[in-house]
Amino acid sequence: MNLITVGSVAFDAIETPFGKTDKIVGGAGTFISLSSSFFVQNQGIVSVVGEDFPQETLDFMRSKGINIDGIQIKQGEKTFFWSGRYHNDMNSRDTLVTELNVLGTFDPVIPTNFQRADYLMLGNLSPDVQRKVIERLEKRPKLIAMDTMNFWMDIALDELKKTMALVDVLIINDEEARQLSKEYSLVKAAKVIRAMGPKILIIKKGEHGALLFHGEHIFFAPALPLEEVFDPTGAGDTFAGGFMGFIASTDDISFENMKRAVIAGSALASFCVEKFGTERLTEITKNDFDERVSKFVALANFEMNQLA
Amino acid sequence: MNLITVGSVAFDAIETPFGKTDKIVGGAGTFISLSSSFFVQNQGIVSVVGEDFPQETLDFMRSKGINIDGIQIKQGEKTFFWSGRYHNDMNSRDTLVTELNVLGTFDPVIPTNFQRADYLMLGNLSPDVQRKVIERLEKRPKLIAMDTMNFWMDIALDELKKTMALVDVLIINDEEARQLSKEYSLVKAAKVIRAMGPKILIIKKGEHGALLFHGEHIFFAPALPLEEVFDPTGAGDTFAGGFMGFIASTDDISFENMKRAVIAGSALASFCVEKFGTERLTEITKNDFDERVSKFVALANFEMNQLA
Repeated sequence: MNLITVGSVAFDAIETPFGKTDKIVGGAGTFISLSSSFFVQNQGIVSVVGEDFPQETLDFMRSKGINIDGIQIKQGEKTFFWSGRYHNDMNSRDTLVTELNVLGTFDPVIPTNFQRADYLMLGNLSPDVQRKVIERLEKRPKLIAMDTMNFWMDIALDELKKTMALVDVLIINDEEARQLSKEYSLVKAAKVIRAMGPKILIIKKGEHGALLFHGEHIFFAPALPLEEVFDPTGAGDTFAGGFMGFIASTDDISFENMKRAVIAGSALASFCVEKFGTERLTEITKNDFDERVSKFVALANFEMNQLA
Repeated sequence: MNLITVGSVAFDAIETPFGKTDKIVGGAGTFISLSSSFFVQNQGIVSVVGEDFPQETLDFMRSKGINIDGIQIKQGEKTFFWSGRYHNDMNSRDTLVTELNVLGTFDPVIPTNFQRADYLMLGNLSPDVQRKVIERLEKRPKLIAMDTMNFWMDIALDELKKTMALVDVLIINDEEARQLSKEYSLVKAAKVIRAMGPKILIIKKGEHGALLFHGEHIFFAPALPLEEVFDPTGAGDTFAGGFMGFIASTDDISFENMKRAVIAGSALASFCVEKFGTERLTEITKNDFDERVSKFVALANFEMNQLA
């Protein structure tokens, strides 16, 4: 197996200035594995759902080459549910409802056929659950990437630091980087955070793109300037899934290839925000993706051959 | 004459978390012309100062190839003075003192030998003064660029729109673009603003880089991630001066060359913030500049040859 994703498979209900959904399928694990399935044919997901979770979504994930043997289905229990409302600027949101349900007691089980995966993506979850997954693997993957949130910095910082010490790549946003490091400058923040464990750091800056810190190098990936962000839910997970899917499928962890992976993740994330939930993610063709990547190339490309 | 800059030549007193200055030389016109002098040997500045302005600064500007015949020296009057204090994040500041002095009655005079300049840079000033300069030129320059601020949007929006209708390039920051267009999305904001006149728009995003809108194209220039911003005063003017200086010296207004000009301006601005006021700007060597530009190339460069 190429890649394992650990993360929530859940229901979301979303309100944006453009509209509002009933309960739809969401969750970090769902977005990550659907996004990475664009690149990876042979991956697995470790998660937990309640008996209310639709079988057709699980079937759909399987049809995308995602092995779902690691999704526990808890009879008599309910799937994790999150509901939120985005503000007009789409950059901030209020959480309306969080029902942990099955996620509250999630004890990850790694199927035997997942055990020797080369790549591991830890989606946003309680850091002790993330750590259990690492500990329960017989062989350490070649590369472990981790997403997390300010929520865990607020309530479980020591646990978070223990898990961070075990991973290779940390993917967080700029606010989280500042909170975690207590430094405003992202260059200084990166130094502090990388000293905590992850040698590679990706700082997502939303509409301002992303920074990749790798060895002595920094790469600045643009975000595609968009007329409209319809629904930002899952964009960060889609980015992470695209990034790790690209790395896993190319099996190359060099800086040059990680830059490509950041662009691939950014391209997929730029689709994700065009519709509610995972809808747009499930429609992307190879041609769509290639066209989108060309836009990133055009956006960032310059030749300094005419210096004064 | 290659380039004319119009803008304040002034005194600033600055407080940052790193220290504080007495009255030092500042002003949009000063930063712009010193920055563009890195590229342009034959330029002029149109401005006004009081009798308190140091002759050695004027001599220094002249030594940089800046023709100062357009600077009026008002006997018995005082130079424009601004004082401000930056907050800890260096992204916001409070104005402590604004003394308009000679700037309050500034009536720009264009010397005869400035009249046929190819390029015109209108630094941040009252939009009716900016417009007078355009009207007082015998020949329209090949390219007119304009900087402005939210201050003029608040108190002189109609005047501002009249001037905007006459220029080719508008250089503003993201907040100003949102205020001017009443659109949050910068892509939508750009459409609204470009419909007001300027066919080319540069939106500066501080630590997040800059966007160049030109025809159907968008270019996203990164900002250099910095450990420390010592003093941001004049960074935007330095960017504008570097941009127009590069354009004027290469005499090429194509999109490809404007991308280079944006990088050149960004590189000079990244020096500007390293010391108080114009100090760092006066020290930059060709070698410093080339090294800095290489950093921008490394930061933004990627090759998507290994697509999935």
